[in-house]
Amino acid sequence: MYYAAPIARLLEELERLPGVGPKSAQRIAYHILRSEAEGTARLAEALLEVKRVIHFCPRCFDFTEGDLCATCADPERDAATVCVVEEPRDVVAIERTGGYRGLYHVLGGVISPVDGVGPEQLRVRELLDHIAEGTVTEVVVATNTTVEGETTALYLARMLKPLGLKVTRIASGLPVGGDLEYADEVTLGRALEARREL
Amino acid sequence: MYYAAPIARLLEELERLPGVGPKSAQRIAYHILRSEAEGTARLAEALLEVKRVIHFCPRCFDFTEGDLCATCADPERDAATVCVVEEPRDVVAIERTGGYRGLYHVLGGVISPVDGVGPEQLRVRELLDHIAEGTVTEVVVATNTTVEGETTALYLARMLKPLGLKVTRIASGLPVGGDLEYADEVTLGRALEARREL
Repeated sequence: MYYAAPIARLLEELERLPGVGPKSAQRIAYHILRSEAEGTARLAEALLEVKRVIHFCPRCFDFTEGDLCATCADPERDAATVCVVEEPRDVVAIERTGGYRGLYHVLGGVISPVDGVGPEQLRVRELLDHIAEGTVTEVVVATNTTVEGETTALYLARMLKPLGLKVTRIASGLPVGGDLEYADEVTLGRALEARREL
Repeated sequence: MYYAAPIARLLEELERLPGVGPKSAQRIAYHILRSEAEGTARLAEALLEVKRVIHFCPRCFDFTEGDLCATCADPERDAATVCVVEEPRDVVAIERTGGYRGLYHVLGGVISPVDGVGPEQLRVRELLDHIAEGTVTEVVVATNTTVEGETTALYLARMLKPLGLKVTRIASGLPVGGDLEYADEVTLGRALEARREL
């Protein structure tokens, strides 16, 4: 036992966080010990506040503080387009591009038979409920380009196209600034297939 | 603004922690949002508890929960030897070796004229107070082997030797398992100088 009990408890809790091992937990704990009590109180309060006030938006299932999330509540957003993503962090990534003006729908995961995740475990029914309102004309499937993401995209396309919806998929290809030489063959193959006239 | 205000506040507080950048702050925040409220409450309480109950040991200036720290309060420790270190984390490192049975003294830094840190900014007077009690016969200087750590070691040696104390310095040399080929010349030079008969 090298640590006083309260320090050992803090280390244990810090090590539960993703990406925090014993070394970084120790660094953070000693930082906390050295710093002002007010700063730590602010961090503790921010942690508790987030659990107290943040919940899922009942429409898109992104995290929100209000009743609806800022995107769903914004009358300026294009309600005819819904972008389907796996997780709330993907909404952040797409919003950062500044190039999308439609709404979102967070699935809460992807179809993954290995992990026992089928469409019933995802928010597919909720997506259908949203579509049933009649304003949506295009669904952009922006799941990751992993095997599970692609499977989920195909599943959604097969289900939604018969409803008369336009279902699109974000493009695969070379990252901007990427070197042909270092691209894997699947990505390069897709980039060729999806070539556009200049 | 991609985040709900409480999430943005949590991200800001997390990014103040050492080694936590925007990406890891986001990972931690989404982990918190997904996990049980009890786990977050435990983390928040561990943070607050550490600031509430942990203080410096009035004898060695390591962090402690009790009046004296566990080492200073242990009658089995050898009170004739005091190991001087820079920071509380160094006590943890030395305790881990299991090879030291004496007491500690945490300086709270090193002499560094560049950063405006002289002996007055460190706990040198407190070390002298401890020595004045008359039980200490050897002071092991275990500051880092940086320029500042060496300067501090020399300063302490010059001050303590006239008091009739044995002042020792932890050995510099090749790390165990280290390759001669990859050792820098200063380290290798010291390892040669400090050679011992087999």
